[in-house]
Amino acid sequence: MAIKFEIIKKSKKTKARLGKLLTPHGVIDTPVFMPVGTKATVKAMTPRELEQLNINMILSNSYHLYLKPGHELIAQAGGLHQYMAWNGSILTDSGGFQIFSLGKLNKISDEGVFFNSHIDGSKHFINPEKAMEIQMALGSDIAMAFDECSPYPAGKFQVETAARRTLQWARKCKEVHTNSKQSLFGIVQGGMYRDLRIQNARNLVELDFPGYAIGGLSVGEPKPLMYEVLDYTVPCLPMEKPRYLMGVGAPQSILEGVIRGVDMFDCVLPTRNARNGSIFTSSGKISITNSKYKNDLTPLDSKCNCYTCQNFTKAYLRHLYMSKEILSSILGTIHNLYFMALLMKNIRIAIQQDRILQYKETFLSNFLD
Amino acid sequence: MAIKFEIIKKSKKTKARLGKLLTPHGVIDTPVFMPVGTKATVKAMTPRELEQLNINMILSNSYHLYLKPGHELIAQAGGLHQYMAWNGSILTDSGGFQIFSLGKLNKISDEGVFFNSHIDGSKHFINPEKAMEIQMALGSDIAMAFDECSPYPAGKFQVETAARRTLQWARKCKEVHTNSKQSLFGIVQGGMYRDLRIQNARNLVELDFPGYAIGGLSVGEPKPLMYEVLDYTVPCLPMEKPRYLMGVGAPQSILEGVIRGVDMFDCVLPTRNARNGSIFTSSGKISITNSKYKNDLTPLDSKCNCYTCQNFTKAYLRHLYMSKEILSSILGTIHNLYFMALLMKNIRIAIQQDRILQYKETFLSNFLD
Repeated sequence: MAIKFEIIKKSKKTKARLGKLLTPHGVIDTPVFMPVGTKATVKAMTPRELEQLNINMILSNSYHLYLKPGHELIAQAGGLHQYMAWNGSILTDSGGFQIFSLGKLNKISDEGVFFNSHIDGSKHFINPEKAMEIQMALGSDIAMAFDECSPYPAGKFQVETAARRTLQWARKCKEVHTNSKQSLFGIVQGGMYRDLRIQNARNLVELDFPGYAIGGLSVGEPKPLMYEVLDYTVPCLPMEKPRYLMGVGAPQSILEGVIRGVDMFDCVLPTRNARNGSIFTSSGKISITNSKYKNDLTPLDSKCNCYTCQNFTKAYLRHLYMSKEILSSILGTIHNLYFMALLMKNIRIAIQQDRILQYKETFLSNFLD
Repeated sequence: MAIKFEIIKKSKKTKARLGKLLTPHGVIDTPVFMPVGTKATVKAMTPRELEQLNINMILSNSYHLYLKPGHELIAQAGGLHQYMAWNGSILTDSGGFQIFSLGKLNKISDEGVFFNSHIDGSKHFINPEKAMEIQMALGSDIAMAFDECSPYPAGKFQVETAARRTLQWARKCKEVHTNSKQSLFGIVQGGMYRDLRIQNARNLVELDFPGYAIGGLSVGEPKPLMYEVLDYTVPCLPMEKPRYLMGVGAPQSILEGVIRGVDMFDCVLPTRNARNGSIFTSSGKISITNSKYKNDLTPLDSKCNCYTCQNFTKAYLRHLYMSKEILSSILGTIHNLYFMALLMKNIRIAIQQDRILQYKETFLSNFLD
């Protein structure tokens, strides 16, 4: 098997776990947050900048890479790692989520999905076989089974059909996935329906994937509902395998996920926010373009040791953002990703010291959204 | 005096010189090319990225910084070096060129210039006193006297008036410039008129500035005409003082300037080109968005040791440019600035070894524009 997962420590009062995920491209301490490199680049970051931020695992999107530049070219280049000069670990999603959220759908059936590209309207068909072909060509460390993600809200029949299809497709993906250096994770669907989630999880577990994702969350539902779904879904997944909550990256939600036993997270939030001037600080999010920072000669976060905070003031950063300078995105992204990496490190330390609940409480009492 | 200039070696067959410019922020080997950081940032570069490129001197624009964020704020921040976290040397222009090229002019007289901001139309007045106030507040290592730059083409009366005013303003600038840590350079104007250039240069030399710039070139005139102006203007400047050719950055023109005795250059060309996908290579400029590079898995320049060429292929870079990814500007700028830094280093080595003419010939025979 391409990955190995070791649990180092289990929290006593919560379901949180401290782990090590061994991949062909390095060892990842979990819980981990994976920044998103949609089009084979974490926006505004060079790979060496990411390394300096102690980031060692990212996510990239099969849907986008399939459309541009094409997975065949990336395979010719030696795979995604070499193509984008990233020596850390990569998880690729299956493309399912983007097909349903970005593509113009033509027809979904048990066989697969016909859709039109969001870029040029060109026609495409993706089924489990194709999703595996794409991800095997990309050569990511972890590939995801092709799934159908239900929107929120959605009626039970629709969600049930999607969950059934997801299971059927997962089986097919496993069958055709032949890249021994890549691990294939299953994705649990079932919307906000307890019985569907539990059934889907159990069925997937029977297929014995090396890891499991919880998909179909963070799609517009209230946060308490997402946590409720985690409450009954995570316990259905095997204790010894990594669990990945897809598309979740708000610090509060990560903490809630961790105490429910989630090991892996990804989200565009910290990088997208950074480009829009929305900055994470230990006391919450700030909008750096606010005129109150015009003459503020203090750093974004006086407690932060990132390159941005060690060298630049709010006044300077605001000037960069107001002038739409590229450096604004670079420095904002460095800061937000440093913040996320530090959050995850603190979470891991707190699990190690068996005080994750206290850490969560302290963090949230300071961090005002 | 804030700067010191030492000539290490003079070329035998040309007027080229190898020098060292000692500034309050480090020693600059000349001939030097200064990348432009218009709004207190060299576009797409962090200061540490510039340092890694062995760049130790940049130019920044007084006009832009005066309008946004304002020179007073920068002074409060401890000066431009601290504001933008740049520990290398900085030369600021006087604002004259931008007022004439970007601002909407209201009235020019011997007293100064009334103009409207190109950003919001607000009314401003800049005279020599104000130009000095701004640059002293910025605290650059080298400040430039306030000048009137004539367009090309321009009639003799117009150019003569501008040259006379430039001389008069230079005198005033010198009078009111009181920052002992900053050196003030004079600027020679006179358009494409030999007698005006020579007269203006001689008059300025009498004022005994620590360095001299040649302004009003690279404003649209044919290149041979620019070289002709250099041919008769440079010899009027003191041998022992640095000479700076403003706004010139094309590799060919730098070489022509160097053999005519110029020590310093600046231009937005390498950084602006980089953002547009126009890349310098040892065999000339290429446009990386050209479809012929779609599947090209070789680096931009196989002879180049920059971070971009050591890690990324043309196919990947083209994908970034086509996708308008920020990383395209970062990697393109790294490459183009590395190219310029290497060009200047090779020029200095060639002067040292007294083979600058051969170097120029070899370079130009390979570098097709």
